[in-house]
Amino acid sequence: MNKFLNNFDKIKFFFNGKECSIFIGFDLFKIKNFFEKFKEKDQVVIITNQRLYDLYYQEIRKSILTITNRVDKIIVSDGEKNKSLKTVIYVLNFLKKRRYSKNIVLVALGGGLIGDLTGFISSIYLRGTYFVQIPTSLLAQIDSSIGGKNAINYKDAKNMVGSFYHPNLILINLSFLNTVSDRQFQSGMTEAIKYGIAMDYSFFCWLENNYKKILFREKETIKYLVYYCCKIKSEIISQDPEENQNKRVLLNLGHTFAHAIESKLNFSDVLYHGETVSIGIVTSLKVANLINKFSKKNTNRIISLLKKFSLPLFLSKEMSYEDYLFFIQYDKKRIRRNQIDLVLPVEIGKSSLYRNVDRNIVIRAINSKIKNF
Amino acid sequence: MNKFLNNFDKIKFFFNGKECSIFIGFDLFKIKNFFEKFKEKDQVVIITNQRLYDLYYQEIRKSILTITNRVDKIIVSDGEKNKSLKTVIYVLNFLKKRRYSKNIVLVALGGGLIGDLTGFISSIYLRGTYFVQIPTSLLAQIDSSIGGKNAINYKDAKNMVGSFYHPNLILINLSFLNTVSDRQFQSGMTEAIKYGIAMDYSFFCWLENNYKKILFREKETIKYLVYYCCKIKSEIISQDPEENQNKRVLLNLGHTFAHAIESKLNFSDVLYHGETVSIGIVTSLKVANLINKFSKKNTNRIISLLKKFSLPLFLSKEMSYEDYLFFIQYDKKRIRRNQIDLVLPVEIGKSSLYRNVDRNIVIRAINSKIKNF
Ligand SMILES: NC(=O)c1ccc[n+]([C@@H]2O[C@H](COP(=O)([O-])OP(=O)(O)OC[C@H]3O[C@@H](n4cnc5c(N)ncnc54)[C@H](O)[C@@H]3O)[C@@H](O)[C@H]2O)c1
Ligand SMILES: NC(=O)c1ccc[n+]([C@@H]2O[C@H](COP(=O)([O-])OP(=O)(O)OC[C@H]3O[C@@H](n4cnc5c(N)ncnc54)[C@H](O)[C@@H]3O)[C@@H](O)[C@H]2O)c1
Ligand SMILES: [Zn+2]
Ligand SMILES: [Zn+2]
Repeated sequence: MNKFLNNFDKIKFFFNGKECSIFIGFDLFKIKNFFEKFKEKDQVVIITNQRLYDLYYQEIRKSILTITNRVDKIIVSDGEKNKSLKTVIYVLNFLKKRRYSKNIVLVALGGGLIGDLTGFISSIYLRGTYFVQIPTSLLAQIDSSIGGKNAINYKDAKNMVGSFYHPNLILINLSFLNTVSDRQFQSGMTEAIKYGIAMDYSFFCWLENNYKKILFREKETIKYLVYYCCKIKSEIISQDPEENQNKRVLLNLGHTFAHAIESKLNFSDVLYHGETVSIGIVTSLKVANLINKFSKKNTNRIISLLKKFSLPLFLSKEMSYEDYLFFIQYDKKRIRRNQIDLVLPVEIGKSSLYRNVDRNIVIRAINSKIKNF
Repeated sequence: MNKFLNNFDKIKFFFNGKECSIFIGFDLFKIKNFFEKFKEKDQVVIITNQRLYDLYYQEIRKSILTITNRVDKIIVSDGEKNKSLKTVIYVLNFLKKRRYSKNIVLVALGGGLIGDLTGFISSIYLRGTYFVQIPTSLLAQIDSSIGGKNAINYKDAKNMVGSFYHPNLILINLSFLNTVSDRQFQSGMTEAIKYGIAMDYSFFCWLENNYKKILFREKETIKYLVYYCCKIKSEIISQDPEENQNKRVLLNLGHTFAHAIESKLNFSDVLYHGETVSIGIVTSLKVANLINKFSKKNTNRIISLLKKFSLPLFLSKEMSYEDYLFFIQYDKKRIRRNQIDLVLPVEIGKSSLYRNVDRNIVIRAINSKIKNF
């Protein structure tokens, strides 16, 4: 094993007083055993889907087995449609049947879907268990595995039911990205671009300058990308864990529109989460232009970066503004029932939460075609 | 209004960094308006049952209306059977249909059932809302409204699904106790006796000395009783919010057996929660006698106090030890799947958590008749 592979990074932080460490590296599970803590635990239960089970379960299990032989798994169905109450009930029944105690570890092995689902179950089974994230998609490694937000979709409402429940440990094995499809990888990139636009100009520039290496998945570049995103996110969420201080909320840039699109598409994975966020960001740029004169130059710069990652800028099939407004009514940012609250960029690297945005402006932005940019 | 009625007590404390105040008084809603905070909120939703709606809803609504006119209610069915996922779904659908934002207040107006249910929903709707407890039963006023534990029963498993989510505000109107039946009132007394046995000898003596005044519901005595219990509970839970330090766990005295009985009775309210806890305490006394030689004298003293409040000491219809052991497998205290962990008294006013208690001793205690005491 060469020196680079032997190397891993650690980020330690606190979420509402609860300590969490992130370990990041290639071939993480070959470098060191990160499961010592499991010795005290009665049972380890890994929640994953069939694809990731086939790819990575044995590798992780082997590593855990050196600590404890009580390792079990639950396979749930893939696809955003299954981030649902039905799946939660399936897992609860499984845990109940085996009489697993509160002293278990629930391990999420998967992308954002598995992470959100497992986090939620971990927060409610016997009032909360030890929780570990092993994110496998780019999106999960740079964003969703950190910060303790979890949720399931409820009927047509995206992420309506969930909680804040931070993992105790996050293990990011960069090698897992090898099997992520290009389209999924690019979808994950939206969240990195989001960090840049919402709060970090120099990172945005770094993305512009390194997009080729990223797309090529050059190892050092990927490591820096993931590490830096984890650093941004962990800093924000430790300052503002439950989104009360107008800081963490900025990470919702683009998401109000994205969630509306996901709802409208019945969580069907026609578009991936990151792709809907890309479209949501573009719509937000338009709103920002109308509200705070967000410049055309910056708009073009952002659009150009999204394009580098082959991210969609608009829906191929139209979605009416009525549909948008209907689903925006489920948005969690609203402090008044009938208003629209949006995170909008002010410049690249700076954004702000705008409360009670004029409905007509939102409609204009939704209806404006990409050519108008 | 005389001076005594005009008077209210306040207890302020922190739960995991979250501030909470308890206000206690007779005719609380006539003394002062405690709802100022609701001004910032988009909507107030009171969760209650039909009986409590008929009795107290208008009084509370009137008080809130001076602050905001956005007051809504949800009526759920009474009875422990309805502390269920079905009711959670009913409430979630209601909130979703009205598009209520995260910036709502959920108010629990009721006993421990409504409190547990509302707390759980408040913790998961849009990842958490502002939460107020207005406990109406004695049990809820002295115990369940404080401490942030919530849960629903899941199939035959008592309190299997829930979270720790502390109310922002607890309003204890002692006058509400006027309509509580004697049997319910006495059932609630078990939790007070529990505090005495588990951790407060002088309070136990106070209960012995004042049982007549309590049963007579003498006003000053009731006020002291509720205030003192709130004080004990708030101190314990602010020191050990999530039951990790062997302190809060002591408040589970008697509950391992109680929950098994409730499960076996299908949450049917043949016995009330406090009544099953009374039986559970008596069984624990027997186990303690076998394990740490808990004295016969103290046992008799405790039994005698339980009897003063007409609390049951054993099940009228036998329950087999197999049934007990079956349901004990759902107990949240277990750190190993197949062991029995029990809180047992050491002397009156002192208790301890015993891990991995000998199964045969537990069986002997279950099988021993009350006459053996
Ligand atoms: N909690 C948060 O803070 C947060 C943040 C952003 C997004 N999310 C949520 O995350 C979800 C999106 O996450 P996602 O993009 O990871 O989607 P996902 O979890 O559905 O994964 C996408 C696909 O990639 C597959 N996959 C994952 N890792 C793989 C690997 N290493 N090799 C091969 N295939 C792999 C999955 O099986 C799936 O088919 C959405 O539900 C979104 O709402 C949550
Ligand atoms: N969260 C906790 O820390 C905690 C602690 C102890 C018990 N509990 C839970 O609390 C529940 C038991 O609470 P409970 O004993 O209050 O039962 P409950 O809520 O079922 O109330 C008992 C009965 O009294 C009625 N009632 C309540 N207040 C009344 C009033 N002022 N006037 C007339 N009728 C009134 C109710 O409608 C109900 O029929 C159980 O589910 C138990 O598991 C929770
Ligand atoms: Zn996202
Ligand atoms: Zn109780």
